[in-house]
Amino acid sequence: MSQTDRWLLPDAIEEVQPPLAEHVERLRRRSLDYFQRWGYELVMPPQAEFLESLLAGMASDLDLLTCKVTDQSSGRLLGISPDLTQQVARMDAHSIGREGVARYCYCSPVLHARKASLLSSRNPLQLGAELYGTASGDADLEIICLMVGLATDVGLDTLTLDVGHVGIYRGLVDRLQLAPAQRAELFDLMRQRALPELQAWLEQEVDDEDARGVLLALPGWSGGPEVLAGLSDRLARFDVAGPLAALRSLVDTLQARLPEVTLHIDLAELRDYNYHTGLVFSLFHREHGHAIAKGGRYDDTGAAYGRSRPATGFSADLKTLAKLTPERRSARPRRIYVPARPDATLQQTVRQLRAEGEVLIQGFEEVAAEARTLDCTHRLAEHAGAWHIMPLDDAHSGLDSTTTEGLKTTDG
Amino acid sequence: MSQTDRWLLPDAIEEVQPPLAEHVERLRRRSLDYFQRWGYELVMPPQAEFLESLLAGMASDLDLLTCKVTDQSSGRLLGISPDLTQQVARMDAHSIGREGVARYCYCSPVLHARKASLLSSRNPLQLGAELYGTASGDADLEIICLMVGLATDVGLDTLTLDVGHVGIYRGLVDRLQLAPAQRAELFDLMRQRALPELQAWLEQEVDDEDARGVLLALPGWSGGPEVLAGLSDRLARFDVAGPLAALRSLVDTLQARLPEVTLHIDLAELRDYNYHTGLVFSLFHREHGHAIAKGGRYDDTGAAYGRSRPATGFSADLKTLAKLTPERRSARPRRIYVPARPDATLQQTVRQLRAEGEVLIQGFEEVAAEARTLDCTHRLAEHAGAWHIMPLDDAHSGLDSTTTEGLKTTDG
Repeated sequence: MSQTDRWLLPDAIEEVQPPLAEHVERLRRRSLDYFQRWGYELVMPPQAEFLESLLAGMASDLDLLTCKVTDQSSGRLLGISPDLTQQVARMDAHSIGREGVARYCYCSPVLHARKASLLSSRNPLQLGAELYGTASGDADLEIICLMVGLATDVGLDTLTLDVGHVGIYRGLVDRLQLAPAQRAELFDLMRQRALPELQAWLEQEVDDEDARGVLLALPGWSGGPEVLAGLSDRLARFDVAGPLAALRSLVDTLQARLPEVTLHIDLAELRDYNYHTGLVFSLFHREHGHAIAKGGRYDDTGAAYGRSRPATGFSADLKTLAKLTPERRSARPRRIYVPARPDATLQQTVRQLRAEGEVLIQGFEEVAAEARTLDCTHRLAEHAGAWHIMPLDDAHSGLDSTTTEGLKTTDG
Repeated sequence: MSQTDRWLLPDAIEEVQPPLAEHVERLRRRSLDYFQRWGYELVMPPQAEFLESLLAGMASDLDLLTCKVTDQSSGRLLGISPDLTQQVARMDAHSIGREGVARYCYCSPVLHARKASLLSSRNPLQLGAELYGTASGDADLEIICLMVGLATDVGLDTLTLDVGHVGIYRGLVDRLQLAPAQRAELFDLMRQRALPELQAWLEQEVDDEDARGVLLALPGWSGGPEVLAGLSDRLARFDVAGPLAALRSLVDTLQARLPEVTLHIDLAELRDYNYHTGLVFSLFHREHGHAIAKGGRYDDTGAAYGRSRPATGFSADLKTLAKLTPERRSARPRRIYVPARPDATLQQTVRQLRAEGEVLIQGFEEVAAEARTLDCTHRLAEHAGAWHIMPLDDAHSGLDSTTTEGLKTTDG
């Protein structure tokens, strides 16, 4: 690597420069404040944990996203966190260990060993909220309303909400009594919606013709709420009445609660990582090809840490949200140039103004051009032994002549 | 790893639970706002970069702190960022590429492969500020004032500031014409202040008796500003007049500018990572055994990325600052319990109150005990078709009888 290409970043790894970084920070604060008003408490999981803790009960696709290093102090493998949900599950199950309902939120960078999808970042800033301790459908409803409410709050509209229930797919598959390897193959084919391969696989592996037909039809059952009509009869032979009723009830409530959001049902939505057990949901925005936020119910995750608790939650990449939302730069405060002078009164004025919330930029060269380079709109100017805030363009105000002169020359 | 120990965290890797996480977040915001009022712009370097970019020109101790993984897309080594300074140098040199003075600040988690010192965390939340584009001593002064000002702003007092100048050590060593390996040995011995080993090494490797004496005396030249008196004469033979004058000038200014801070001179302070080239400084607080913030001048770092720019800056672990600062929990807002009711007026009231900044916690069980478990101080109660905020203890207010009854029973 020569000197000239040491500045290259790895594929799909991004830095955030000003002024976008400031916008991301504002969104971060707005989001965490929003979560707080719904009672979600902030947690900060570490960037690395023992690999076994990080991947306990997770599917291999999360494993493939995880960067691994050997821990020098234990000789065991560490994983660099690719997703915070599992870590929050560990904290809820063990280190926090609260009884009853618990709500957590977080916003921390994660790292992916490879891109999760073609256009995705390998270092998202993961923002999310998780609700533990109740299996109630009202909890899923709260998470969905929180997710949509947050997106609306940060300025996104024309939203589409995809909802599904992995219990329907699971119910169909359970009666087939497949071996674990077969289950994994079917799961992958269904998740990829690879219809010809799915059909060939089903014909070879599954005898039950009715089940074959339903599994092959599953990816096609997507669309508006009308998709659900008639499904009870069609699926009566299978043990999916519970999931179907839960999905229908959610859809009814959402139509009343979030009339501004376009609802889309998708019964083949299985979600990555294979940890979901119930309702799953994704939020889409017209300007982004992938979901901007995803979530669902995952009731079994805590079991790996010794305490199984019902849970539901969602997460998003804050950097993606930042790229889609208006920057609201109008809020940027004025920047006041401070001339380089060893003057105690000046220092006192600067301290005072900063304490009042003003932005003061120290100069080092004492030329007016510097104030412009530093992107200042105002300056401190001395008059009668005191320092005053003046617009940078105002060179005719009878101030201390040296300063005014200096500014006049370069303002030309 | 059995189910029962999957919750263990690796040595010196910490998670942050509520309510400490909330305190850390408040400090984060306060610190970044403080930086902003001094004109520092937020940047977010990525958690991982090509190892060569991350360690360009750095000493082996930073290498040892860096977790490495192979990048799947390039086959090259990635380093998980152990320190953000080098990354900000890369951004300043290349991706931002601004001319003239530039100020950056950041607050992101970093990861260490091993503990940097006996009690340090392996996943600090690194907070810092960097000033590029001027070699002026006023820039070092600004960074020191910013560092001390920040510590004071977040509630720390009784501070001690250590200052040194690595140019003095470098000037002494330069005239010895040592081989690189010898320089590294001497650097390590000096940094460890291993006096007997240092003496033995000097006697074996250095002929110049005067230089030997001065190098051996260097670790002893520490204490109040009076340490500097007479050093000009003692060091007249060596090319250190510039560094010595810069240090003296800084000390004079600091005594006037920061009279509340105890000043401590330390001429053998060389700092880790070997990237510093001028003034170096550390801030200490009586309740913490290590420096709570460290910084210094590093003028050559950008050269590795094709653009050498003078630079000075400091950084701190925000989690350490959080542990030392008062939590200010008085600011915590009231938490209002929302009974589980499919009531459109209730939902409307909840939305309205959240928009006004109130914290509303949805219940799922509709029993008063739940409100206490959820740590609520207030509740929404229905009266004459509208919902009102009531203190949780108030069970005798003539409200809707069902709600009041429910609360009364469990409040007992």
